[in-house]
Amino acid sequence: MASKVYTKDRHIIQLATLVSGPGSILFKKADLAAYDCDGFTVQKYLPRAVVFPQNAEEVAAVVKYCSENGLPFLARGAGTGLSGGAIPINGEVIISLTRMKRLLSVDLENRRAVVEPGFINLKLTHAVSDQEYYYAPDPSSQYCCTIGGNVAENAGGAHCLKYGVTTNHILGLEVVLPNGEVVEIGKNGIPDAPGYDLLGLLTGSEGTLGIVTKITVRILKNPEAKQTVLAYFDRVEDGSQAVSDIISAGIVPAALEMMDKIAIEGVEAAAFPVGHPKDIEALLLIEVDGIRAGIEEQINQILEVCRNRNVREVRAARDEAERERWWANRKTGFGAMGAISHDYLVQDGVIPRSKLPEVLSKINEISQESGLRIANIFHAGDGNLHPLVLFDSRVPGETEKAIEAGSACLKACADAGGTITGEHGVGIEKKEEMRFVFTDEEIIAQTDIRKVFNHDNLLNAGKLFPTPGKCAEIKQELKKA
Amino acid sequence: MASKVYTKDRHIIQLATLVSGPGSILFKKADLAAYDCDGFTVQKYLPRAVVFPQNAEEVAAVVKYCSENGLPFLARGAGTGLSGGAIPINGEVIISLTRMKRLLSVDLENRRAVVEPGFINLKLTHAVSDQEYYYAPDPSSQYCCTIGGNVAENAGGAHCLKYGVTTNHILGLEVVLPNGEVVEIGKNGIPDAPGYDLLGLLTGSEGTLGIVTKITVRILKNPEAKQTVLAYFDRVEDGSQAVSDIISAGIVPAALEMMDKIAIEGVEAAAFPVGHPKDIEALLLIEVDGIRAGIEEQINQILEVCRNRNVREVRAARDEAERERWWANRKTGFGAMGAISHDYLVQDGVIPRSKLPEVLSKINEISQESGLRIANIFHAGDGNLHPLVLFDSRVPGETEKAIEAGSACLKACADAGGTITGEHGVGIEKKEEMRFVFTDEEIIAQTDIRKVFNHDNLLNAGKLFPTPGKCAEIKQELKKA
Repeated sequence: MASKVYTKDRHIIQLATLVSGPGSILFKKADLAAYDCDGFTVQKYLPRAVVFPQNAEEVAAVVKYCSENGLPFLARGAGTGLSGGAIPINGEVIISLTRMKRLLSVDLENRRAVVEPGFINLKLTHAVSDQEYYYAPDPSSQYCCTIGGNVAENAGGAHCLKYGVTTNHILGLEVVLPNGEVVEIGKNGIPDAPGYDLLGLLTGSEGTLGIVTKITVRILKNPEAKQTVLAYFDRVEDGSQAVSDIISAGIVPAALEMMDKIAIEGVEAAAFPVGHPKDIEALLLIEVDGIRAGIEEQINQILEVCRNRNVREVRAARDEAERERWWANRKTGFGAMGAISHDYLVQDGVIPRSKLPEVLSKINEISQESGLRIANIFHAGDGNLHPLVLFDSRVPGETEKAIEAGSACLKACADAGGTITGEHGVGIEKKEEMRFVFTDEEIIAQTDIRKVFNHDNLLNAGKLFPTPGKCAEIKQELKKA
Repeated sequence: MASKVYTKDRHIIQLATLVSGPGSILFKKADLAAYDCDGFTVQKYLPRAVVFPQNAEEVAAVVKYCSENGLPFLARGAGTGLSGGAIPINGEVIISLTRMKRLLSVDLENRRAVVEPGFINLKLTHAVSDQEYYYAPDPSSQYCCTIGGNVAENAGGAHCLKYGVTTNHILGLEVVLPNGEVVEIGKNGIPDAPGYDLLGLLTGSEGTLGIVTKITVRILKNPEAKQTVLAYFDRVEDGSQAVSDIISAGIVPAALEMMDKIAIEGVEAAAFPVGHPKDIEALLLIEVDGIRAGIEEQINQILEVCRNRNVREVRAARDEAERERWWANRKTGFGAMGAISHDYLVQDGVIPRSKLPEVLSKINEISQESGLRIANIFHAGDGNLHPLVLFDSRVPGETEKAIEAGSACLKACADAGGTITGEHGVGIEKKEEMRFVFTDEEIIAQTDIRKVFNHDNLLNAGKLFPTPGKCAEIKQELKKA
């Protein structure tokens, strides 16, 4: 796509004075090309410049400069986001937070850690694992994604069924507002702190309200024990019903993952095959954790539930090594699709658990109508579907067809009483699909809130919300008049 | 205190046409007197009228009328709030939601129930207990408080240590905005739904952003088993240290309550004495729940931790009847103070767990300085203190002294890195104390958000936020200019 090309203009010269250290600004076209998209690679735009501040003061100085000079800007972490939230669609100045990557403090007694936004998710668990603590949110990209990015997208992961998504683990934020002011939010990690819940509002706001420069997170004690069950089903309906039965039995698994036939074909063709049969329709991976004494009873209940639902084969992992192999196989997930398809598009919808069979069958219909294969790898326990539309971008028209099929999957989720994203965010990818779940009035209420923080809409504009329909615009004008 | 007295003016006549059924409006002074305060009885004001709508349409009609005619208004549930959030300090029209008290639906498969705002908290557990489900948030007033009020205050309770406060159990809201529009928020209970987290923003906003007319809540499966340990300590420090040790051991108790010597004197003089020794300095009540097989191991760990901290006596409940007696004794809590003092003032501060001994000793100093006894009954596990300042309002000057001592306790919490409310809200009671934890800029950011919803500030004005200091006002004027 066409992008303006910026040279070393007066703004670049000024911005360079605001960030310290060598290589703290990029402005040449060749350098900028690495920042023209994130994990959503369908649209590409060059930024005006990329700056690498070292601390909150430098972030604030850059933000203030941009704000005073009317330059669009946005924040970027590791760039692993899947919905295009860090793509500079307005030729933004990108504020990269990758140099602000320190672990500032660990307070085991109060179970907190303070990190800079560029700190890698998995490194936090590594830093406290000797003391048997860990950081719970575990997106599949956790070995490279940043906690700042996790806050922006309210990232989830396989173990969020039991432990909740990022917002449940954030105790406080230091934020640079779009006017350059630095504020602290939710200072002390109190579940019901006084005042409005700004911490919740900022978390998951996809970089449209402010730039996070410091994060206080909750760390958890390692569970005493964990065990995983693997179950193969000949029919998707039986697998889905087993999911409902496990939850109804009062078990709260740490993770409850499902893969369908095409997904199994993919992970078995990828880096960590484990020999799953290729003729089954559904596979469940069910992990429980907690006090050692309680694990065996739960595992027995899970085995029984699966047997009552016509499981072909079901058993617990023989040892830790096998458990880890099963998870490594599952975690190759999305990437594994590359082994069986030239291209693929990940979608991210959520449905009430009871609607699993109905929506999976609808996705199957969408696949047949579009002529494209759709794999399903997903967090079944919390109804978070990930249809993977397989296509070949070299075939004319197939990319468009894939995008259409992906959107149809989201429509099916919304129609089933669900919604259009469970953990990947809206970004630029799903702006229009927001209309599946929000009225114009509800979108306006949210853009009004954006205005409170981001008055001139210079920070990450054009993301998250569609333009409200014409009727709504007229209504808003009338209100103002 | 002085209050305006309203007669049957033209507004009353109009409002009466908007609410159906007999007795749907009160306007006589004698009738209004019952609504001049809530659980915060220090300030009293008469409302202009009290209306009792039967559905969202009637709420919207009343709100629209008030809004168009510049009449201040506010919503009220059971009136059990402890911070004055439902007190009509501006002679408001009170919209009582006590007639909207239906349980609209229960969906066990997806673990949800939909209730009207006037539905009593405990009734929800009663409605689903035959199927072995329950509603988790359990404020001490749960036998009479409404779920609508719980949403407004983001209510907590003894078992919120493990299960979280109200906001963690709300999946969706229908809300009448101050302009009379009806919107649905967080329609489908998705943990990371698209758009801004308005559900979190509304929950705990103390009735200043909208009036909730329908609530979708999460219901949980009963734990398979529960057990409670009672421990007596000669020294507060040992009790506090045991609290930290239990959490550090990786145990997440369902509840972890503490009472000090004066509190024990109170509960033993009240309705359900159980024979606690009166010469101990601290009592812990520790409940664990979950899979039966895991309970015994946790109980043994807890017993051991207490023994390592010089416990005088510690044991698990012999049977369910004893467990229930211990809890009934604890739940008489605040009310029990009436047995040993003419008046008492409940405070509600939060501190990091590790600061328990330091802050308890500071509260002791405040007590000595003021000459007033201060009892402590509190949720020790999550550091939510409830200092109860005992006083006699018949003694001139003692009420003021008690208010001052209460405020000093909150200051001690804030200074220890905590905050001024954990579950009772700010209301009118703690407006000024908001300055202990928020800067003027942070207060303005929040009142700016209030403006988005509550533009004319007719809905529950004068609550939650103090007027920002003069400097801030000038800054804001400069910004606008």
